[in-house]
Amino acid sequence: MTDWFRDDVHSAVASLDERAFQYGDGLFETIAIRGGKPRLWHYHLDRLDRGCECLGMAMPDHEQLRLSLQKVLAQSSAASDSCIVKIIVSSGTGHRGYGRKHISDPSIWFGVSHATPLPKSNYRDGVDTQICKTRLATGSATAGLKTLNRLEQVLARSELIEQNLFEGLTMDASGIIICGTMSNVFFVIKNRISTPALDQCGVEGVMRRHVIATLEKHDIGVSDATVEWQDLASVDEVFITNSQFGILPLRSCGEISWSVGATTRNVMECVSACGVPECRL
Amino acid sequence: MTDWFRDDVHSAVASLDERAFQYGDGLFETIAIRGGKPRLWHYHLDRLDRGCECLGMAMPDHEQLRLSLQKVLAQSSAASDSCIVKIIVSSGTGHRGYGRKHISDPSIWFGVSHATPLPKSNYRDGVDTQICKTRLATGSATAGLKTLNRLEQVLARSELIEQNLFEGLTMDASGIIICGTMSNVFFVIKNRISTPALDQCGVEGVMRRHVIATLEKHDIGVSDATVEWQDLASVDEVFITNSQFGILPLRSCGEISWSVGATTRNVMECVSACGVPECRL
Repeated sequence: MTDWFRDDVHSAVASLDERAFQYGDGLFETIAIRGGKPRLWHYHLDRLDRGCECLGMAMPDHEQLRLSLQKVLAQSSAASDSCIVKIIVSSGTGHRGYGRKHISDPSIWFGVSHATPLPKSNYRDGVDTQICKTRLATGSATAGLKTLNRLEQVLARSELIEQNLFEGLTMDASGIIICGTMSNVFFVIKNRISTPALDQCGVEGVMRRHVIATLEKHDIGVSDATVEWQDLASVDEVFITNSQFGILPLRSCGEISWSVGATTRNVMECVSACGVPECRL
Repeated sequence: MTDWFRDDVHSAVASLDERAFQYGDGLFETIAIRGGKPRLWHYHLDRLDRGCECLGMAMPDHEQLRLSLQKVLAQSSAASDSCIVKIIVSSGTGHRGYGRKHISDPSIWFGVSHATPLPKSNYRDGVDTQICKTRLATGSATAGLKTLNRLEQVLARSELIEQNLFEGLTMDASGIIICGTMSNVFFVIKNRISTPALDQCGVEGVMRRHVIATLEKHDIGVSDATVEWQDLASVDEVFITNSQFGILPLRSCGEISWSVGATTRNVMECVSACGVPECRL
């Protein structure tokens, strides 16, 4: 169960006129609370900033957002040292029809829920995946952003429900692998690390960004990947990233299987030392 | 103001756990009530059917939907002989995370609001438009459907807010004109009528379908259009369609202007005789 707040006041419902409900007109962030504090907070704020700019909304004041989050965590029965907070920013109820003016004061909700740590074996042995049938549309006006328009992820992830798979990889219309349904993907090819560009579709995860920044500090570059599903068998190692679980190696994708390689283990070690202890092997 | 009902019971709010709110995981229809009855009801039901199939939801029972609509219209203070009913079908609150099973019993809301007829001059003289900067992503898994993921339309239509324009035309990434922000578009080129295919992006409007079916009865074919914005100046006539207003000629798009042509007038006459009297000149 998620414990919901409007700003820092308990509230379980929203108006049906809310544009988040009508059009998905808004943004969200799913933040890992660790040691009672929001992890990668500055990256979440930065993505929210960029989302607000793209959607024509004033960015909620950073300090106000931090204070509200503190109050919410202090009040919520679902809060703990290690939990999940979802922030939803909606353009509100003031404008009927698709069009609206710049939103100077968006509506903000906080949802607190329990975090369930993954079994250590997922980190050690990797997880199983498949290629999803659902493709991501290319040339999205909101590519890279975490908007409330998430039907592609809903459809792709729903493909996995009947199967015992941890994640699915999604491709664009041309067959290039872009990301997971709830994660970003990194490839290791001949010891070089790459990840798909997200300027046409997909979501730019905060953990993806943290991994790239952490590797940069170790002078390890990450290049743009253009890996089609047919190429996947010749990729040496694959790992996925997500704000909650950090990094997980891929053990399989359909018929293809991998063992957890040295580069992935090295990346997990680096990132575990940089605020993501889940990844420690 | 919209007067909201959950099924046929007054209700102004929805749970924050509602997947329509979280992910835009649902569909909607905006129905013109004329003479107290829903216009083009069978086309609305058909699009809803196709949407439910695509999203993995059981289609609400047609007869039950009609009965609920009747009860809503009988109860609502916003209802009149000529009004608007919005039906929202959401996948509900039962599943957390993107993935979910097939939804056997989706949640349904009805919103009733007043209809404001357009001035007769809009039909007679045409309306002014522009080409929107916001492009539609191609290869959408929900192309043609009226899902609750409508950020492209929100962004495109918001471009018009500061200007005195009736509508904006949206293009795909390659510059092909696909539809209006709240309408479909038809072109007349050398007396032949065409309209963009909607298999990659855009929404297939019920009035678009009604126009095509009505013209078919008159042995007038409508072909697929591939009109780029650069070609627009050489198009003889342009008109747009929408469930509420029926058909409107375009008077201008940016620098290009048209007078209302004989073919458009003929189409408006045919369709006005087929249940859409708004179009009578």
